[in-house]
Amino acid sequence: MPSLSEFIAANRRAVQLDPIELSEPVPLEELHTPALTIDLDIFESNLARMQNHLSSHGLGLRAHTKMHKCPVIAHKQVAQGALGVCAAKVSEAEIMADAGVADILVTSPLASEEKYVRFADLAAAHAGAKVVVDSTGAASRLDELARERGIRIGVFIDIDPGMGRTGIEAGEPVLELARHCLDNCQHLRFCGLQMYAGNCMHTEGFENRKAKYEKVMSKGIATRELFENAGIDIPAFSGGGTGTYDIEPGLGLMTELQAGSYAFMDIEYRDIGSSSAERFEDFPVSLFLLCTAISQPQSRLITVDAGFKSLASDKMAPQFRDVEGVIFHWGGDEHGIVQLDNPSRMLNLGDKLPLVTPHCDPTANLHDFYYPYRDGMVTEIWPISARGCSH
Amino acid sequence: MPSLSEFIAANRRAVQLDPIELSEPVPLEELHTPALTIDLDIFESNLARMQNHLSSHGLGLRAHTKMHKCPVIAHKQVAQGALGVCAAKVSEAEIMADAGVADILVTSPLASEEKYVRFADLAAAHAGAKVVVDSTGAASRLDELARERGIRIGVFIDIDPGMGRTGIEAGEPVLELARHCLDNCQHLRFCGLQMYAGNCMHTEGFENRKAKYEKVMSKGIATRELFENAGIDIPAFSGGGTGTYDIEPGLGLMTELQAGSYAFMDIEYRDIGSSSAERFEDFPVSLFLLCTAISQPQSRLITVDAGFKSLASDKMAPQFRDVEGVIFHWGGDEHGIVQLDNPSRMLNLGDKLPLVTPHCDPTANLHDFYYPYRDGMVTEIWPISARGCSH
Repeated sequence: MPSLSEFIAANRRAVQLDPIELSEPVPLEELHTPALTIDLDIFESNLARMQNHLSSHGLGLRAHTKMHKCPVIAHKQVAQGALGVCAAKVSEAEIMADAGVADILVTSPLASEEKYVRFADLAAAHAGAKVVVDSTGAASRLDELARERGIRIGVFIDIDPGMGRTGIEAGEPVLELARHCLDNCQHLRFCGLQMYAGNCMHTEGFENRKAKYEKVMSKGIATRELFENAGIDIPAFSGGGTGTYDIEPGLGLMTELQAGSYAFMDIEYRDIGSSSAERFEDFPVSLFLLCTAISQPQSRLITVDAGFKSLASDKMAPQFRDVEGVIFHWGGDEHGIVQLDNPSRMLNLGDKLPLVTPHCDPTANLHDFYYPYRDGMVTEIWPISARGCSH
Repeated sequence: MPSLSEFIAANRRAVQLDPIELSEPVPLEELHTPALTIDLDIFESNLARMQNHLSSHGLGLRAHTKMHKCPVIAHKQVAQGALGVCAAKVSEAEIMADAGVADILVTSPLASEEKYVRFADLAAAHAGAKVVVDSTGAASRLDELARERGIRIGVFIDIDPGMGRTGIEAGEPVLELARHCLDNCQHLRFCGLQMYAGNCMHTEGFENRKAKYEKVMSKGIATRELFENAGIDIPAFSGGGTGTYDIEPGLGLMTELQAGSYAFMDIEYRDIGSSSAERFEDFPVSLFLLCTAISQPQSRLITVDAGFKSLASDKMAPQFRDVEGVIFHWGGDEHGIVQLDNPSRMLNLGDKLPLVTPHCDPTANLHDFYYPYRDGMVTEIWPISARGCSH
């Protein structure tokens, strides 16, 4: 019989981290659906494009693994040039550490004893694990746990960009918390500031987005000035995402970008528009949920085997990649009901159909494996190792 | 290197099926959040109440495991008197079979070769596995696969209650499909009819719900008459759910109820009203997502560590069980932002707070384990073994 912590450790050890190579290639049409597939040509081109863009502007990439939850992909991002990754939760960071990803920042603050201890244990085993703090209480407790373990814990101070989600108020409070870390917490290492404006990422229209983001970030710039005047170095400024990747160079605040969605993309991001087009397709969609038509109770409807349990439903409905003139209606937990208004092709029972996902992050979190393919063939399977790591 | 089917089989074998007993009891407050907890007193009373109600009216319970995805719970339902269970997908049925649940009906039709084969293999290994059919094509192919395996496959004919989701049109088409099964498919066993009116389960107000359900089900009654006139026995009539549990006895069509949510309940069901009260609390809520307050960027807001990745978002926002005068706003994939209008108690960083879930089925599907408790203590953990089994 395990204790609670032994139970948690055993489950962590049981996670599959490596790609599974198949003994023979499998055509997409033979996958058991719903199956989360990745078009490798588009995916690889997205990884390269983001890294090249950032490198050419002297910015680092801290890829957000909360999006894909997959160490195989994290390693590809690092191999491509990313300086490290983000994780939203401690349990997610553990998986990335177990898989050998060196530099990992937990981007959400901790506030309970078992999480402080769990993170300190991770940092003791994995020197590259860092975490954000947004209160003196968290900083002090992490400092104490680091002292007990004979280590130094790297921390970023999280700044609220006005969303009211996480982070300390911009300006003087940030400086005070930094001073607390530098002066009173000998076992913390001040790594920099984080300011992630999630409320700007999906603003429609490039000019709107840019204007809104610059306004929100002006408080970040003012905070940086406070640090400069106080003679306190800011080793790194972390934040931004796919939606601001081409705004950051001009703004000049971030030193590293926390982008995630660019690798897969989804309807939500595609529809915000880019600097040059109505659709944001600088990074085309590479992730598709393959589903199957399983029932046709009425002549103008056909039902597919994907609902709330295989597609995140916090945003709009999914769309078919290859069929126009149809509307996907949510049909509950396991089904989608497709209204055949003026379909661009015949749909028959048994057809396998790729869907563009509404929101890639929580959709990936519903699945255990990715099925990457090239030329319609799947040769290996990638475990979504940190799926369900919400704690 | 495995083939695709060896890979699927290996993952199935790796699933944990049994409860994990802890070496010492853990207080709820020490759980790592978000954690899906079950109030055992309420849960057990819900199981007993539904079974007693149905038994006293001569109805069977075919508990739907798509809701809890947990063999531990399925076994409790059967021990309590359920005649069997439902599963929404073949992969879900496999897990229940592996755990030793005898009678399992897959309630969604199959329409692709790899799923026909997968189900036939399951039926060959597990005699109690049955599936619905809603087309002659599916019936004929399953018959052929049963013949090849030297078995008979039990089938229910799925009838569309007018939702347009799955099922064949009520009336003559059902009779024709039954004749096809009986006359041309020697390796199928005709087990009965299924007619699940998911579109009636959440109709608000008992009288509204009853009237709507009776109207929809009149086509089921007419179909039964067609069978009676044709001299074809209907061994069982399966359908209905938590929302119609007290309507079925008067209607007299169903012989077995496909209820699932009654064990856990959620906001969606609670708010439909019962025959005697504004809230449907014949089965009180027993499922709670425990979350932690982790940040307070602004004085009138506090942020908890639960968002789209730990709470299904297809319905309304969650509610706190023990705190009034606050509003939960979705704060993205990992967060909820709690607006402190007139809170009935102080909320502090680190507080552990139980949330009532909006929709229990897809919420359970986001988690790996249940933490059942009594008197505030967790003594064992139940694996959500079929979580992610959407294929």
